[in-house]
Amino acid sequence: MTIDAAVAELHTLLGKRLSRSKSDLDIHGRSESYFPLTPPDAVAYPESAEEVEALVRICAQHGCPVVGWGAGSSLEGHALATQGGVVVDFTRMDKVLQVNAEDMDVVIQPGVTREALNEELRATGLFFPVDPGANASLGGMAMTRASGTTAVRYGTMRDNVRALEVVLADGRRIRTGSRAKKTSAGYDLTGLMVGSEGTLGLVTELTLKLHGQPEAVSAAVCAFPDMEAAVNTVIMTIQMGIPMARIEFVDPNMAKGFNVYSGAGLPEAPHLFVEFHGSEDGMPGDVARFRELAEDMGASGFEWAEKSEDRSALWKMRHSAHYASLALRPGARALVTDICVPISRLAEAVEETRADIAAAPFPGTILGHVGDGNFHASLMFDEEDATEVAAVMDFSRRIVERALRLGGTSTGEHGIGIGKLDYMAAEHGDGWNVMGEIKRALDPQNIMNPGKVVRMN
Amino acid sequence: MTIDAAVAELHTLLGKRLSRSKSDLDIHGRSESYFPLTPPDAVAYPESAEEVEALVRICAQHGCPVVGWGAGSSLEGHALATQGGVVVDFTRMDKVLQVNAEDMDVVIQPGVTREALNEELRATGLFFPVDPGANASLGGMAMTRASGTTAVRYGTMRDNVRALEVVLADGRRIRTGSRAKKTSAGYDLTGLMVGSEGTLGLVTELTLKLHGQPEAVSAAVCAFPDMEAAVNTVIMTIQMGIPMARIEFVDPNMAKGFNVYSGAGLPEAPHLFVEFHGSEDGMPGDVARFRELAEDMGASGFEWAEKSEDRSALWKMRHSAHYASLALRPGARALVTDICVPISRLAEAVEETRADIAAAPFPGTILGHVGDGNFHASLMFDEEDATEVAAVMDFSRRIVERALRLGGTSTGEHGIGIGKLDYMAAEHGDGWNVMGEIKRALDPQNIMNPGKVVRMN
Ligand SMILES: Cc1cc2nc3c(=O)[nH]c(=O)nc-3n(C[C@H](O)[C@H](O)[C@H](O)COP(=O)(O)OP(=O)(O)OC[C@H]3O[C@@H](n4cnc5c(N)ncnc54)[C@H](O)[C@@H]3O)c2cc1C
Ligand SMILES: Cc1cc2nc3c(=O)[nH]c(=O)nc-3n(C[C@H](O)[C@H](O)[C@H](O)COP(=O)(O)OP(=O)(O)OC[C@H]3O[C@@H](n4cnc5c(N)ncnc54)[C@H](O)[C@@H]3O)c2cc1C
Repeated sequence: MTIDAAVAELHTLLGKRLSRSKSDLDIHGRSESYFPLTPPDAVAYPESAEEVEALVRICAQHGCPVVGWGAGSSLEGHALATQGGVVVDFTRMDKVLQVNAEDMDVVIQPGVTREALNEELRATGLFFPVDPGANASLGGMAMTRASGTTAVRYGTMRDNVRALEVVLADGRRIRTGSRAKKTSAGYDLTGLMVGSEGTLGLVTELTLKLHGQPEAVSAAVCAFPDMEAAVNTVIMTIQMGIPMARIEFVDPNMAKGFNVYSGAGLPEAPHLFVEFHGSEDGMPGDVARFRELAEDMGASGFEWAEKSEDRSALWKMRHSAHYASLALRPGARALVTDICVPISRLAEAVEETRADIAAAPFPGTILGHVGDGNFHASLMFDEEDATEVAAVMDFSRRIVERALRLGGTSTGEHGIGIGKLDYMAAEHGDGWNVMGEIKRALDPQNIMNPGKVVRMN
Repeated sequence: MTIDAAVAELHTLLGKRLSRSKSDLDIHGRSESYFPLTPPDAVAYPESAEEVEALVRICAQHGCPVVGWGAGSSLEGHALATQGGVVVDFTRMDKVLQVNAEDMDVVIQPGVTREALNEELRATGLFFPVDPGANASLGGMAMTRASGTTAVRYGTMRDNVRALEVVLADGRRIRTGSRAKKTSAGYDLTGLMVGSEGTLGLVTELTLKLHGQPEAVSAAVCAFPDMEAAVNTVIMTIQMGIPMARIEFVDPNMAKGFNVYSGAGLPEAPHLFVEFHGSEDGMPGDVARFRELAEDMGASGFEWAEKSEDRSALWKMRHSAHYASLALRPGARALVTDICVPISRLAEAVEETRADIAAAPFPGTILGHVGDGNFHASLMFDEEDATEVAAVMDFSRRIVERALRLGGTSTGEHGIGIGKLDYMAAEHGDGWNVMGEIKRALDPQNIMNPGKVVRMN
């Protein structure tokens, strides 16, 4: 077998850092969400770009699939070796290589996690803002084009990766981009790699943009009479240019989940959780303008978190949403969807989704990075009950169709993996074929995370 | 001849809108900067995406080169039909198709110019910020990944194009992206197209991000004792997160040029021209903090432009830089370079460039979008004097080498065209080959703006 031959050579290359232990294979065969256990043939733990290069050359020679692995927190089965082969786990490549404070950038290895990076940056007055909740690796985040609560202000991984080092399918190691803030020198290979889910190469180094820690921060929770009022508040806040750093929508079911899970004591109504970043002078005015706007729309129960501990508690609650949703039906499995629509269509998209949840045989919550028009529905279904499984799959097809009908996308931030592959043709038309043509040009043997993002036949 | 056959069929398709008049060919054979007249075989004036599609299919059938043309203001010979063929002039596709105020986006045809777009948006409270000075077309700006004075705040075309419609080399018309603010659904084809200089397809529609017109605007001019003081002021301003919308560096020679050309009365010293966008509450504090910072660095002669007319006069002066530079040597030709480096290396890059100008047999000015680490040098040389021509070419090679040595890029915003092709290998290494592989996959016949950005053999 070609995979076996590759694994044997990789063993020579990496010694103990090529693992075939059942527990290791199982850990790397699991994924968040609802996909079955899919263990790879082996797990490699490289420690340098040179090793990654050698590893890929071996796999290329034997036609052996190569699948990157950061923290394994992706939600659509992205990092599962569905065609066997080697999972390349980057946890040993976790060094921060350079912090360039004047240039507000940082050069890191792909295994550095978001939390570790910000810990390292704390004393510099700078931070890395992209925050998917999970303590994901930066390599994985780049590969899924992750975003999260702060994207409304600081952008997604698309906006915050300045340069990459990538090992391609044939073992060539290239650098894309540079530490310059902008360039017009040819095709944007950095942008092409970001969001490619490891199907075009393995990332061995990232240069990321940093941001100044805000001088003043303020956060609040408020309830709205209905969804539309909440969304209109968001639209107007953005149009007025109020420097909001986070603006999260929470539906009545999700509020209930927070109450059950962490005794939040929220009214079971639509909510916005917001955070402002600004200057000491500007902040009070911004906060007042937001409050006025929101109250005009019927917002009530404003609770402000001025102290850093209170804000941490608020965002801790927000980041516990997955478990708070599960608390609504202990023992159930959760399917987490992720669509994004133009913000003018958001109220419609959420209302239709709520009606769909109300009619479903299982409970569901809605939570959204609403400043981007991006929201998730979590459906708590019984994976042993075939009717529920069928119903949840139908639900998830309908929500994507809704997104596309309203001019949006099948995934705002989680990505395609295997879970959303079936919608690519509908979303992109011939553009999906173009993606396949690019893949074929750069990975003709289809060894880099095969079966994800594109179809090759 | 295959080109002749294509032209004959195009004539049937477009009638009078396929021009072969000498004056038309000459207009479309000229370019800004120093390239010789290169008339194409014909100029097409399509009026719809369907026509563009039909046109490209005809050219594909006959292997006839197809070169897009917006306003022809690009500076590296981008739009010259160096291998003959048809120039596709988009001036008749100049409609604003949709203004979506709630979503802060606009859908336009590629021939809409920057000024026409902002005129159309004036009453909406929104604007499109990317400002390359010239009244370029948005199609052309997307294709060169243009930026300009406001990129420090609002980003470049990379950041402000949400979706595209593109006709590929084989006539397929695809849509990339959507009106959703973000997506993780597959490869970023929009990003791949932006900056591709028409070598991967013709853009027939753009969806652009808009921004709110700022509530308060303030601008100023101040002089510094030396370059380093000016750059350090910029670095600290950015790190403090002061919401600067423009921050332009002007060297002593450039200041002299403004004096000669428009009687500006500036001291012949390094200057910063700045503009702040913010809220009525926050602005005075921002302005005060900037002033304090700058004065600590030795800035003097602060002149504030609070009134809109005064600011217009300031930026009109800034945008006249090309002519103000030429005023230093009437009758000379100008070579305009464009490099970008990490901001920590900017003072070094500018100082070395100034020394190089001081030693040159011709005058030169330096002007920079300094918040991005991006600057231009304009060299006013005598095109009849072979020694000067050789010297200016050497100068322009040295400035690129300097940029690459300092970790930057050969072009921050003007692009590659034919003028910078020779530096691509040094800048990108194997990455340049990867660009060629992508080009070959999408345009195997090499008909889309052949000879630009990549090499095919
Ligand atoms: C509770 C919870 C909340 C979440 N919330 C959000 C959210 O708000 N926003 C959001 O965007 N996501 C969210 N996610 C999803 C997840 O955190 C992101 O998809 C994240 O980017 C995955 O990073 P990872 O390091 O875990 O990558 P992995 O899951 O390990 O891998 C992701 C993909 O990248 C590839 N890969 C990993 N490393 C490399 C490398 N070095 N080179 C090449 N390919 C590589 C893998 O093959 C795979 O295709 C959430 C997940 C959970 C569990
Ligand atoms: C005085 C002056 C100042 C300038 N300052 C700046 C500056 O500050 N920043 C900056 O970025 N640039 C600047 N430029 C350069 C120029 O304005 C930009 O490069 C601009 O983006 C070119 O736009 P255009 O419409 O003139 O495009 P063109 O010159 O017509 O074409 C540019 C490229 O795009 C292609 N193209 C055009 N339209 C299409 C289409 N619809 N589909 C496919 N391909 C197409 C062409 O083939 C060509 O390769 C300046 C130029 C001048 C003359």
